[in-house]
Amino acid sequence: MEEKIVELLPGERIDDLIRNDLKIIQSKEGFCFSIDAVLLAHFATLKEGDKVIDLGTGGGAIPLLLTTRDVNIRITGVEIQAKVAAMATRSVLLNKLEGQIQIIQKDIKELPGLFSPGIFDLVITNPPYMPAGSGLPSEGDIVAISKHEIKCTLEDVIRTGSKLLNPKGRFAMVHRPDRLTDIICTLRNYHLEPKRLQVVHPSLGKKPSILLVEAIKDGQPGIRVLEPLFVHHSNGDYTEELLKIYYG
Amino acid sequence: MEEKIVELLPGERIDDLIRNDLKIIQSKEGFCFSIDAVLLAHFATLKEGDKVIDLGTGGGAIPLLLTTRDVNIRITGVEIQAKVAAMATRSVLLNKLEGQIQIIQKDIKELPGLFSPGIFDLVITNPPYMPAGSGLPSEGDIVAISKHEIKCTLEDVIRTGSKLLNPKGRFAMVHRPDRLTDIICTLRNYHLEPKRLQVVHPSLGKKPSILLVEAIKDGQPGIRVLEPLFVHHSNGDYTEELLKIYYG
Repeated sequence: MEEKIVELLPGERIDDLIRNDLKIIQSKEGFCFSIDAVLLAHFATLKEGDKVIDLGTGGGAIPLLLTTRDVNIRITGVEIQAKVAAMATRSVLLNKLEGQIQIIQKDIKELPGLFSPGIFDLVITNPPYMPAGSGLPSEGDIVAISKHEIKCTLEDVIRTGSKLLNPKGRFAMVHRPDRLTDIICTLRNYHLEPKRLQVVHPSLGKKPSILLVEAIKDGQPGIRVLEPLFVHHSNGDYTEELLKIYYG
Repeated sequence: MEEKIVELLPGERIDDLIRNDLKIIQSKEGFCFSIDAVLLAHFATLKEGDKVIDLGTGGGAIPLLLTTRDVNIRITGVEIQAKVAAMATRSVLLNKLEGQIQIIQKDIKELPGLFSPGIFDLVITNPPYMPAGSGLPSEGDIVAISKHEIKCTLEDVIRTGSKLLNPKGRFAMVHRPDRLTDIICTLRNYHLEPKRLQVVHPSLGKKPSILLVEAIKDGQPGIRVLEPLFVHHSNGDYTEELLKIYYG
């Protein structure tokens, strides 16, 4: 039924987005949502009626997932790539969530000119993890732009996030463990005090794959390092903790 | 036999220091060595013949333990409290390790005037964890000075350590997880780039108790977050990993 209201372009398909019968349009040539987005959407502290902005929303997985946590939040998803932003917009329509989610196609560095400072309660972001460098695919490569700091750096994301947040607003991010020092120091430089940190491991005894961090605008020093999260048991099954995050 | 060469003061006793039949003199009114020192002495990267300095050595547990890792290293242990430094010196004599370990009674803030810059390969430190604040015992309280930032702050330790280290020298520290942001940012501010981080939990499912961090003077950005270390199994027994650290 719902599929009829939106058009699929060549190469696109409709995937299940785990919770609440949510659907998401994804493309085989684009960057598909991953466990990172799912864990971040679960990790971020969310309060009723929050105004949320997702910096680099891609196909819109994080805004879609956040709607399952509170029906009164409003989410703006920002995506620089026109093709990807259009796909995210169609996913919002597909789920009839246009009352809660707005997708805008923008370079996040332009956002402070578009929004008044401090109007958001939560900035959430799953930014490109890899520094821009040599040996990369061409500028127009959709996956490369999603994964590498070509269009925006870690500092761009944090500086922009800090400007958009109200005092005591939250900044929640998923990133790679090897960038921990850059993350922690850049957050503090922009008055976003890290308050919660969780390290995610593929399984017990494996080195960490990602980390989740939440900072508070103008917060007091002092961070809680949470229990590590293990995705799989050693036999390959998902852990109970992960299944709970996925299926509630 | 060995006990005869050193004098014990009232309230002092001789304890086993786990490895290589090492003994340590401790006092019931002083701060006794803990698992934190044992884990740090194991965690620090040590190279043959290193010149090592332990900032805030207390009873000398870390220098004593380090001698079991390499017979060619030379270690200077610095302790501000005269009574505690004297006790550490007697522990060194008790173990006949005066050829490898020298204990000096100094305020660490005075060390840059005492040593040429950059003459150490490894700075190791188990500094006071708690910020100085209200409700503390009197200034002369030995335990309070060991545990609270009364005589030196985290920044004092890091600034001093950085001055004493040669380029690519290592700075290894044990501290509390809630100070992670202060630790990481202060290290980087003083050109000590964090390279390895390990979080220690009392057991699986318990919040972390301490963290171990190693930085490299003038190192490149990029940190390895190691596997978390669990001290006990859920039944209270030590984990195999911990037993290996304790008994080799």
